[in-house]
Amino acid sequence: MIRVGIVGLGNLGKGVEMSLKQNPDMELVGVFTRRDPAGVTAGAPVYSISQLNDFAGKIDVMILCGGSATDLPEQGPVLAKLFNTVDSFDTHAKIPEYYAAVDAAAAQSNHVSIISTGWDPGLFSLNRLLAEAVLPEGNEYTFWGRGVSQGHSDAIRRVAGVKRGVQYTIPVEEAVNRVRGGENPELTTRQKHLRECFVVLEDGADAELVAQTIQNMPNYFSDYDTTVNFISEEEFTSTHTTMPHGGMVLRSGRTGESSTQIIEFGLKLDSNPEFTASVLVAYARAAARLAAKGDFGAKTVFDIPFGLLSPKAPDELRKNLL
Amino acid sequence: MIRVGIVGLGNLGKGVEMSLKQNPDMELVGVFTRRDPAGVTAGAPVYSISQLNDFAGKIDVMILCGGSATDLPEQGPVLAKLFNTVDSFDTHAKIPEYYAAVDAAAAQSNHVSIISTGWDPGLFSLNRLLAEAVLPEGNEYTFWGRGVSQGHSDAIRRVAGVKRGVQYTIPVEEAVNRVRGGENPELTTRQKHLRECFVVLEDGADAELVAQTIQNMPNYFSDYDTTVNFISEEEFTSTHTTMPHGGMVLRSGRTGESSTQIIEFGLKLDSNPEFTASVLVAYARAAARLAAKGDFGAKTVFDIPFGLLSPKAPDELRKNLL
Repeated sequence: MIRVGIVGLGNLGKGVEMSLKQNPDMELVGVFTRRDPAGVTAGAPVYSISQLNDFAGKIDVMILCGGSATDLPEQGPVLAKLFNTVDSFDTHAKIPEYYAAVDAAAAQSNHVSIISTGWDPGLFSLNRLLAEAVLPEGNEYTFWGRGVSQGHSDAIRRVAGVKRGVQYTIPVEEAVNRVRGGENPELTTRQKHLRECFVVLEDGADAELVAQTIQNMPNYFSDYDTTVNFISEEEFTSTHTTMPHGGMVLRSGRTGESSTQIIEFGLKLDSNPEFTASVLVAYARAAARLAAKGDFGAKTVFDIPFGLLSPKAPDELRKNLL
Repeated sequence: MIRVGIVGLGNLGKGVEMSLKQNPDMELVGVFTRRDPAGVTAGAPVYSISQLNDFAGKIDVMILCGGSATDLPEQGPVLAKLFNTVDSFDTHAKIPEYYAAVDAAAAQSNHVSIISTGWDPGLFSLNRLLAEAVLPEGNEYTFWGRGVSQGHSDAIRRVAGVKRGVQYTIPVEEAVNRVRGGENPELTTRQKHLRECFVVLEDGADAELVAQTIQNMPNYFSDYDTTVNFISEEEFTSTHTTMPHGGMVLRSGRTGESSTQIIEFGLKLDSNPEFTASVLVAYARAAARLAAKGDFGAKTVFDIPFGLLSPKAPDELRKNLL
């Protein structure tokens, strides 16, 4: 049995709790929260984050479910001193810095910390690497969606007059088809993705002004074809409160004289946090196994053989899945 | 520079030769053939297979390009005693036996041998394992094609009255769409793939009899909807002498209360042997690196972290591809 802890019980932490139930070789020892534990219900004992020190040696892997903006940069290095850890740190530009901080802590304390798992970074990164290694001459295309972008939805909700809002990122079908057809197109930002917004207005708000403010917002929307739909609060609640996402990584390469070779990896997810949680749990298994073999330090998905992700034994994998 | 040798110069060996040109960190030292070397031209010196012993210590990885039916079961274990090796052994049912034979030879002589690379087994296997580890509750579907099946084409050519013949395996689009739609259908053999044959008849052959003989052939065709098209030799030569292939591995899983999560990996290949060769070359890089670190024994794609496949340094991979 691999003994697991969860730090942070938002959507991601709840997803980890559910995923662990599908993995009988893992056991949830406790959930750690910044809130008052008395007010939190979970499928395992709930503790204050201040009690984490008491669990050193009693938990094989701690799954960090905090946010990448402020939680993980602080918690990752601190917790890597006490536990083997897995996280889904996803601020791409800050990965080298975060890796260095976690690596120093984990190496010094003989722990394994697998950072930036999930699907992007994570499974998409694996496919970018694999496809480039196999097809060194070629072009890589990543499309995201159809799915909810948290950052863009937050941006909408900061606009005056918006009561509720959500934004879907949508790959432009024509662009995807051109890539799949082996055209190797050069695509601008606008040609790759559409942005579709659903907004519930505050009473008396000016719809036209809200739409223009959103569509002209630099960085977030002005470089895209953005549509803004105004809907009732009832429709919003019934249709726009789940968190679907997905996307695809394509590589269109050339081999030999003139052969076009296309590799595509795609996800279609009803629940982004539940899927990310499931990836975290599979990498938690790998972290526990690496630590048991005496390995240590920060790792990424690039360092982990897939065999360590499965509960099955190597000979069974070779026999049935190879 | 990684010094590479090729054993066997059929379509796959020629593909490896071309792939090596796209990988500037690798150098082709020699090609080894069972034929008279004087009659073989290649982009590197050509030697008789009987000279292999002279190259121990002069080649970092030997890429084995023989067939799985008779060449590899014999060559794999013998060459693993002399060299680090990579192969694309693809007789699924005999992998455990082949692994054991190669492992004994490689472990005893301190070499690394990565067996059964390519795309199925190989990249498809990796995706079956990954998707099952991330989504333990769910169903896996592998579709092959549209592409040339060598075994089925050979079977056609053994039918009396057939001068030339080729068989394409084609996924049934409706089945693929049902899986992508999250239906988790149970699919029979017939519901998953079609078989399409193109045949040039011998002079005076009975077309109807040839078609029926093909369509009723047990194991190969009788469990499938099989169409047989009769064409001229000119059309055959101009349209049906390349080796496209591809396919997809899908997993449709469930997480949480009722979220459907779909993972799809697909290939669309103008040239099956050139693509398989490109995979072999990426794994040859990994074999050389593992051996340089003192590792040994037989390995499969399940044992190899993706980071070892890329010529780029780990920090560059984390910065640019994660």
